[in-house]
Amino acid sequence: MTSVPSDLALPHPQRAEMRIEAVLHALADPVRLTIVRALARAPQGISCGAVNLPVSKSTVTHHMRILREAGVIRTQPVGTSRISTLRRDDLDALYPGLLDGVLAAER
Amino acid sequence: MTSVPSDLALPHPQRAEMRIEAVLHALADPVRLTIVRALARAPQGISCGAVNLPVSKSTVTHHMRILREAGVIRTQPVGTSRISTLRRDDLDALYPGLLDGVLAAER
Repeated sequence: MTSVPSDLALPHPQRAEMRIEAVLHALADPVRLTIVRALARAPQGISCGAVNLPVSKSTVTHHMRILREAGVIRTQPVGTSRISTLRRDDLDALYPGLLDGVLAAER
Repeated sequence: MTSVPSDLALPHPQRAEMRIEAVLHALADPVRLTIVRALARAPQGISCGAVNLPVSKSTVTHHMRILREAGVIRTQPVGTSRISTLRRDDLDALYPGLLDGVLAAER
């Protein structure tokens, strides 16, 4: 049996369900932008604990959820961890240039 | 005397004062996106009353203010009107691709 137990799988919007307002809202936060920048540097994905953030673990979980529910990141169970990756393909297909413009921002 | 009366001039952030979080927040709203899309089609600028929106005039004024204070639009008095334009040069310089990605969004 190789399927993911349903209680560990998290819901994600499909590409057709993503909305620009939700994506922009998800990106419009300094903590979430820090997470997105870290994920952009780690295409293999990272666990949320691997991002060094000045907020509590539950706050990180909250921010990861907003990013996931907007379609910005994908979070999947791997063993006992959850590994997140940036949904660059979906973002670039729907909003070409947006992610690169955000990542290029110095401030 | 050709200077703009100070009580009609509105404050705008300079390019160096603009912040990506504020720009993304300003764009992350359906009414404000409608305004931005209308301004993108009207490089000569438009008065806020010229955008057909299903909200009150005071609500439009509120949304225009958020866009202006983030640096997304410039609003200047022209006679007895206020004409707004998209700050495309500033946005493209700071966040190349972002505005085009947002304008390309079908949803």
